[in-house]
Amino acid sequence: MTEDKIFLDNCWYAAAWEHEIAQADFKLGRTICEKPIVFFRTESGRYIALDNRCCHRAAPLTMGRIEAECIRCMYHGMLYNEHGQVIQIPGQKQIPENFKVHSYPVQEKGGMLWVWMGDPALADPKDILDFPPLSDPENWRGFTEPSYLHYDANWLLIVDNLSDFSHVAFVHTNTLGGSEEYAFTSVPEEIEPLDTGFRMERWHYEAGVPPYHAKVLDQDEQAMLVDRCNLMEMHIPGVFLMETRFKPAGAEPQGQGKGFHQYRNCQYMTPETRNTTHFFWNYLHQAERQDASISGSLRESLLEGFMEDKVIIEAQQKLLQQDPTFDPKFMVADKAFALVRRIWNARLEEEEKVSPRIPPLSSRNRIL
Amino acid sequence: MTEDKIFLDNCWYAAAWEHEIAQADFKLGRTICEKPIVFFRTESGRYIALDNRCCHRAAPLTMGRIEAECIRCMYHGMLYNEHGQVIQIPGQKQIPENFKVHSYPVQEKGGMLWVWMGDPALADPKDILDFPPLSDPENWRGFTEPSYLHYDANWLLIVDNLSDFSHVAFVHTNTLGGSEEYAFTSVPEEIEPLDTGFRMERWHYEAGVPPYHAKVLDQDEQAMLVDRCNLMEMHIPGVFLMETRFKPAGAEPQGQGKGFHQYRNCQYMTPETRNTTHFFWNYLHQAERQDASISGSLRESLLEGFMEDKVIIEAQQKLLQQDPTFDPKFMVADKAFALVRRIWNARLEEEEKVSPRIPPLSSRNRIL
Amino acid sequence: MTEDKIFLDNCWYAAAWEHEIAQADFKLGRTICEKPIVFFRTESGRYIALDNRCCHRAAPLTMGRIEAECIRCMYHGMLYNEHGQVIQIPGQKQIPENFKVHSYPVQEKGGMLWVWMGDPALADPKDILDFPPLSDPENWRGFTEPSYLHYDANWLLIVDNLSDFSHVAFVHTNTLGGSEEYAFTSVPEEIEPLDTGFRMERWHYEAGVPPYHAKVLDQDEQAMLVDRCNLMEMHIPGVFLMETRFKPAGAEPQGQGKGFHQYRNCQYMTPETRNTTHFFWNYLHQAERQDASISGSLRESLLEGFMEDKVIIEAQQKLLQQDPTFDPKFMVADKAFALVRRIWNARLEEEEKVSPRIPPLSSRNRIL
Repeated sequence: MTEDKIFLDNCWYAAAWEHEIAQADFKLGRTICEKPIVFFRTESGRYIALDNRCCHRAAPLTMGRIEAECIRCMYHGMLYNEHGQVIQIPGQKQIPENFKVHSYPVQEKGGMLWVWMGDPALADPKDILDFPPLSDPENWRGFTEPSYLHYDANWLLIVDNLSDFSHVAFVHTNTLGGSEEYAFTSVPEEIEPLDTGFRMERWHYEAGVPPYHAKVLDQDEQAMLVDRCNLMEMHIPGVFLMETRFKPAGAEPQGQGKGFHQYRNCQYMTPETRNTTHFFWNYLHQAERQDASISGSLRESLLEGFMEDKVIIEAQQKLLQQDPTFDPKFMVADKAFALVRRIWNARLEEEEKVSPRIPPLSSRNRIL
Repeated sequence: MTEDKIFLDNCWYAAAWEHEIAQADFKLGRTICEKPIVFFRTESGRYIALDNRCCHRAAPLTMGRIEAECIRCMYHGMLYNEHGQVIQIPGQKQIPENFKVHSYPVQEKGGMLWVWMGDPALADPKDILDFPPLSDPENWRGFTEPSYLHYDANWLLIVDNLSDFSHVAFVHTNTLGGSEEYAFTSVPEEIEPLDTGFRMERWHYEAGVPPYHAKVLDQDEQAMLVDRCNLMEMHIPGVFLMETRFKPAGAEPQGQGKGFHQYRNCQYMTPETRNTTHFFWNYLHQAERQDASISGSLRESLLEGFMEDKVIIEAQQKLLQQDPTFDPKFMVADKAFALVRRIWNARLEEEEKVSPRIPPLSSRNRIL
Repeated sequence: MTEDKIFLDNCWYAAAWEHEIAQADFKLGRTICEKPIVFFRTESGRYIALDNRCCHRAAPLTMGRIEAECIRCMYHGMLYNEHGQVIQIPGQKQIPENFKVHSYPVQEKGGMLWVWMGDPALADPKDILDFPPLSDPENWRGFTEPSYLHYDANWLLIVDNLSDFSHVAFVHTNTLGGSEEYAFTSVPEEIEPLDTGFRMERWHYEAGVPPYHAKVLDQDEQAMLVDRCNLMEMHIPGVFLMETRFKPAGAEPQGQGKGFHQYRNCQYMTPETRNTTHFFWNYLHQAERQDASISGSLRESLLEGFMEDKVIIEAQQKLLQQDPTFDPKFMVADKAFALVRRIWNARLEEEEKVSPRIPPLSSRNRIL
């Protein structure tokens, strides 16, 4: 294990879709930034995130029992309140004050539960990046149960993937792309640096309709030449938001009617460990609400594309883990990712100054 | 690998039930305290324990052949006598004196083979803790073939589990316990420190018959209120012995008849590695000898209970391995386990003074 | 990871049988000495070996596409020529000179592709050890598709195995050996040291025909007593060549007719990693060309024998990995292996002087 700090603490991470813990008495165990956490909903409906290990003997609270606003460890019966404080020890009257686990600030926004890994005093829900289409069912229809994928790869390799769409040409030729030409003829119009990442616009003019889009179109629209614009935002720690707009080739952007279509897409990448990632996503369209087959088709197409990425990215991970001497070469199109990486490293260094790492206990003081 | 000494050498470890190597020419390979050992019975019936790797090229002797009182490595044919000395090298006349493997003192007691990991000169079979019921078939009936479980957990986590029976209330409510009330109303009467561990008595008064016991009772006894006494002993390295006595609630301890029942139980925990454990157990009763269904029912009930422990303990192990900074909090009920741990650590430090660890060979001197 | 140098760079390693990459557009990913390499044949028929990871983001070139004499990474579309130089970056005009991967010298000889892991300027195909029977179909018939086995063991454990044939007596009694007597009565006539290893001759006189040989003989020859001579050569890094000659017991070596038979055998051991090995082999005979059943029988018999070795050698590997303090004892028959090991270590030390190891990048400079 490296001794360097790896993860930012003071930021909001996408942790779970609401529907993942909707079931009564369900405790979701999920590791975020190498911290095992239990997520659950109390009887009154509040979301709670605690260290997923009892402070006494490290038994997992996911094996516990929700009791009103509390959770009981089912090893020796300690009862924790929502702040992570032990409020009952069976067979013992005094409860020492240090009998507690960390309680992570957790907040719902757009159907996603966001968790704050750092100092709770600094956690401000206003800092959670809102993606309005997720909360706008009048205009945008996504998946009833938004999707989750598990990656055997560091989350930055996925951020990297999404920061340069030239890969769409080669990896997704027959799914999301449409032709290899895309890599040669389309380049980002501009890359706008942000405090937390970048904004980027990429036009592809006069090209065939990409396969995933064609599948949900009427036959006459499938044969059109179109201009496609992807307007993307990336924010640390791993929030990717995208507007995709199609118009008939050469048409004015503001037009309407045949050939005009829009999508909205979010992809959230959250480190589970340094080598594995939680990947959440939704893909929203404007077609008729009652047509569930549109969402079904998009879900299937996008998943097919994501699996094309996954096999490459997990192969990268293996090769990079094998060889820590690998020295990557940078090309022009890496500019956007370099921005993200620079912000990430600067923020890491800032945090490192104020929160030194906790050393391991000596073997004689451990229970293991 | 930590450089600290982890295991005590100069003590007897439970290694195998006799029936495990009863079969002719069977060689049992079992790792004890991270040392691979081959156990076998010679033609004359003696038990032998040798390093399970030929001194020449580390081929496993479990792939060897028992020849009278010897075992032959079936790679290049070296023949070892029961002291681990090579007495024949095919194709070579001179046998260097250092052609030998370690021969571990091994001793049968109560159907268990005990192995001594340290200096053979210090091995005294009288130091093996005898559990008389195992050798007293007139009064106590156990399993014909006593049981073995493999744990993916450090053995101290199991010792810890057995040192505080309040967990019975929550983990074993519907099997060995009977109610959660047990944790709140019963506490140890006294904890008597021993040179090698502790003795402890725990009464539970006026409670329903616990499920595992009810299953082997007549119907009229199942509905009784009973007092239950567990009298336990724990000795390092990992020997747990228990008397369990039931009496009708409020009756004199020495009485007889309906509602009076006793059990005897041994559980031996032996480290395989720092992260895995050999777990041996038997559970003895006084019911009619001819009724094999009593033993069958107890075996099934106890195993059900042990599996409830196992899932928690192996979860603890994973969480503790993930995070060497975890700093456990101690409650009053941990007093007994703290005694064991203190004795263990003191003995480790003593041994460390006299037997420094062997450093690894430099890579150029290895055959690998 | 040890910091010692483990593998020789400046030598030819057996990498793949030609037939393994005969299929059009097939890219063989194979790790040699812990370096991931892609092997392929260009449209014009040349063999190429490149680092199996794009210099940009470490995507594997085995997922790439062969284009004439080049290979294209199918992540962002970089095109590599046969020297490992990037000659096209989609969407970017300038190509920095350091956009390249290592191109390993690769050479076909005797149906085997040999790869040079060190300085290309020192690679001389004349240094590849030729085994003439492989290129002499008039006199020697082997397998149409020579064989490959993967070992979960360090390659030196296999070199060790082949350097002392006394194991044939115990490991291969019923397959390649014939009797345990072999270990007691046959010893190497002489061991001739070579610059790169050793040559050794071992006679076994007046013994029954070993099982693998008997299976391809007529009935009258199966019952003969024979003299068997194995003439072996071992060369670093892991090239084993053997002539096996049978004659009727007591006959002149140069005779002909009933009971006179010869075989030729090569076994190439190439480290994949420090703990795993690529094992290539062929076994050639002089029986009638049209009788494919002879080769089939020999292939089956030899494989049966090799699997007897494999189970022991992989067990050794596990035991040796578990315990880096294991200090092997040397017997007289280890002389041959000791020669190999001494040459290997001396060459390692030489190389270490001129090529220091590359340190890992700091975590902030990695993309992972």
